[in-house]
Amino acid sequence: MTSRVIGPIDPPPRLLMGPGPINADPRVLRAMSAQLVGQYDPWMTATMNETMALYRDVFRTANEQTFLVDGTSRAGIEAALVSLLEPGDRVLVPVFGRFGHLLTEIAERCRAEVHTIEVPWGEVFEPQQVEDAVRRVQPKVLAVVQGDTSTTMCQPLADLGEICRRHDVLLYCDATASLGGNAFEADAWGLDVVTAGLQKCLGGPSGSAPITISDRAAAVIDGRKHVEAGIRADDETDAPGERIASNYLDLAQVMDYWGPRRLNHHTEATTMLYGARECARLLVEEGLDAAVERHALHGLAMLEGVRGLGLGVFGDVAHKMHNVVAVEIPDGMDGDAARATLLADFGIEIGTSFGPLHGKVWRIGTMGYNARTDAVLTTLAALEQVLRTTGGVAAAQEVYAS
Amino acid sequence: MTSRVIGPIDPPPRLLMGPGPINADPRVLRAMSAQLVGQYDPWMTATMNETMALYRDVFRTANEQTFLVDGTSRAGIEAALVSLLEPGDRVLVPVFGRFGHLLTEIAERCRAEVHTIEVPWGEVFEPQQVEDAVRRVQPKVLAVVQGDTSTTMCQPLADLGEICRRHDVLLYCDATASLGGNAFEADAWGLDVVTAGLQKCLGGPSGSAPITISDRAAAVIDGRKHVEAGIRADDETDAPGERIASNYLDLAQVMDYWGPRRLNHHTEATTMLYGARECARLLVEEGLDAAVERHALHGLAMLEGVRGLGLGVFGDVAHKMHNVVAVEIPDGMDGDAARATLLADFGIEIGTSFGPLHGKVWRIGTMGYNARTDAVLTTLAALEQVLRTTGGVAAAQEVYAS
Repeated sequence: MTSRVIGPIDPPPRLLMGPGPINADPRVLRAMSAQLVGQYDPWMTATMNETMALYRDVFRTANEQTFLVDGTSRAGIEAALVSLLEPGDRVLVPVFGRFGHLLTEIAERCRAEVHTIEVPWGEVFEPQQVEDAVRRVQPKVLAVVQGDTSTTMCQPLADLGEICRRHDVLLYCDATASLGGNAFEADAWGLDVVTAGLQKCLGGPSGSAPITISDRAAAVIDGRKHVEAGIRADDETDAPGERIASNYLDLAQVMDYWGPRRLNHHTEATTMLYGARECARLLVEEGLDAAVERHALHGLAMLEGVRGLGLGVFGDVAHKMHNVVAVEIPDGMDGDAARATLLADFGIEIGTSFGPLHGKVWRIGTMGYNARTDAVLTTLAALEQVLRTTGGVAAAQEVYAS
Repeated sequence: MTSRVIGPIDPPPRLLMGPGPINADPRVLRAMSAQLVGQYDPWMTATMNETMALYRDVFRTANEQTFLVDGTSRAGIEAALVSLLEPGDRVLVPVFGRFGHLLTEIAERCRAEVHTIEVPWGEVFEPQQVEDAVRRVQPKVLAVVQGDTSTTMCQPLADLGEICRRHDVLLYCDATASLGGNAFEADAWGLDVVTAGLQKCLGGPSGSAPITISDRAAAVIDGRKHVEAGIRADDETDAPGERIASNYLDLAQVMDYWGPRRLNHHTEATTMLYGARECARLLVEEGLDAAVERHALHGLAMLEGVRGLGLGVFGDVAHKMHNVVAVEIPDGMDGDAARATLLADFGIEIGTSFGPLHGKVWRIGTMGYNARTDAVLTTLAALEQVLRTTGGVAAAQEVYAS
């Protein structure tokens, strides 16, 4: 392949109705087309402070330490775990889908002692199950996903916060798939560290990971602070805790970069910051409660819509996230072929599935910018045509095929 | 601070003539305003392949493993080092400025046995100095910066590649600050792993780290591959090497994500990918040699320009990067106050300095989109006014001040 004939970027029009990423809100993309400023420009530092304030509203927290990690949502998860967990620390992960396995995997790489509990895919945990495990394991950190797109389930968190306070455990939550589309209360629920991404209900592109850190978690992280040799103050000594294994994802340093000290670390990904700021600004402008209600409405419309097409729905619907539904593929239908037809003929993307659900369900999202009436109804109309493969659309498809 | 009154993003106009980040090429920002597509959409995977091909041209390599790490240039550095270096491995870092210290710092966090050699700031290494140290240390990896903006120096690399082949050492290079503005030959010089960023001579925003990996380095990294439990094939076993300490920056997994297997890892930061692709596309369209010549021309103009203003230049100018110059602050002048005036009155940013050069030099860049005649001449004209503080501009400034 030679690169000499490659033209400007020109993506095909797509309506992205999978489990994310979804179409970005055009206002977010416009914000990202703004020109750069220097990273210590007074306007830039003020804009970073505004972004912190906006995400405090989004996470519903008063945490001073609320900012962005410069990477995808997975970078946020790893930053949280590698900064909290020292080698040998115990961590408990309740696993109810693929992203619980990811937390386990990342915690293992932190050389933590990882304990898991599991429920079958399509279910969530009762608080008592988690408390029993906390009592048995006595972990430093309980690490839990709120919404796991692999199963569409949304784990209730309020009781877990209480359990963690009772047992003096730090509570980390991955809210990537759920934040903005489902009720979320960092402070009221007693969450210590929460990370997210832009590419789900926040209506932006992947590549920036908002994070919030409670004071008690920040103290644990700061207890491991080792400032880089090139930029440390002459009288600065290392904290007693074991140095964090990553430099890039070292939250002790990243807090000093976003904080009043403005200590040089990475070069802030300014365009992603513009996008992350706009995602939060639009959400705050709409109102968090209104955004959750919008996701609830369009999620219910999609749920009843696929049922109206005679399709079954996977999992405990009472605990489903608002923003995604797992739809059972009809017997005898090639699910991937149907997805390919939806994409080729209608420009609509719906999702396949992982692990035990692979080949059994499609995952259809209604989130962020695409939690809209026209997006829901267009998707259902196209899906109906693909399920039928006769009638007016079939006649037009024959024209294209010939 | 309440977030309720925060308006859309609206940065002030700035001409960024520091050591980077600099203004993004408007064509790159336009590419980044394109709408998203799904991460396994055939158009998306084709676009990822195009991006790989473009960066092969930029790095001047035939390496199959040429792609993007989703983070800032520092994420690329850490991905390279944490994927190559197992705990206890020896690494040699020739330090000639701040970013050599950063390589040391990151390698330490990989629990490698880190050895350094140093030259005074403003100088580069002779090949013999490096070979003597390689012979003494017998490292697995030699990790070196090509262009260190902290000193403006550009380390010659061709001889280092030969030394590494001779001693069977892997050669890693951080080309963040130099790539696109100075001669660079990954294959001809025998470099094994090279990482970069967009925010210097490539004319894009920070947030994506292009990387290229030779076959022999890829084999070392693949020797440590541990695919995540949730997505591994049933018959897949772990490689014998110690599992890479990071999941997010695990290049063995990232190679499988960009490669034909398309194995799920992170969710690609699509907007940053659009930007990175356009940066490379514009560079290839201009021609690599032409781009280097352009940086040489405007760098020389700036160098002679500041000398024409009677200012001294720091360091061994024969080994200066084309794209940045360290300008001695005149005796008795408050360098930060002068920078603040340049920013407030002319909208022009030039850089301060780190470590031993702090307060002694300004760093002025001519790179990427800003390696242009008007940018150079405007900056020199404004700097001349700030140095004079009398005359026509001073009269106008008095109007603004009153």
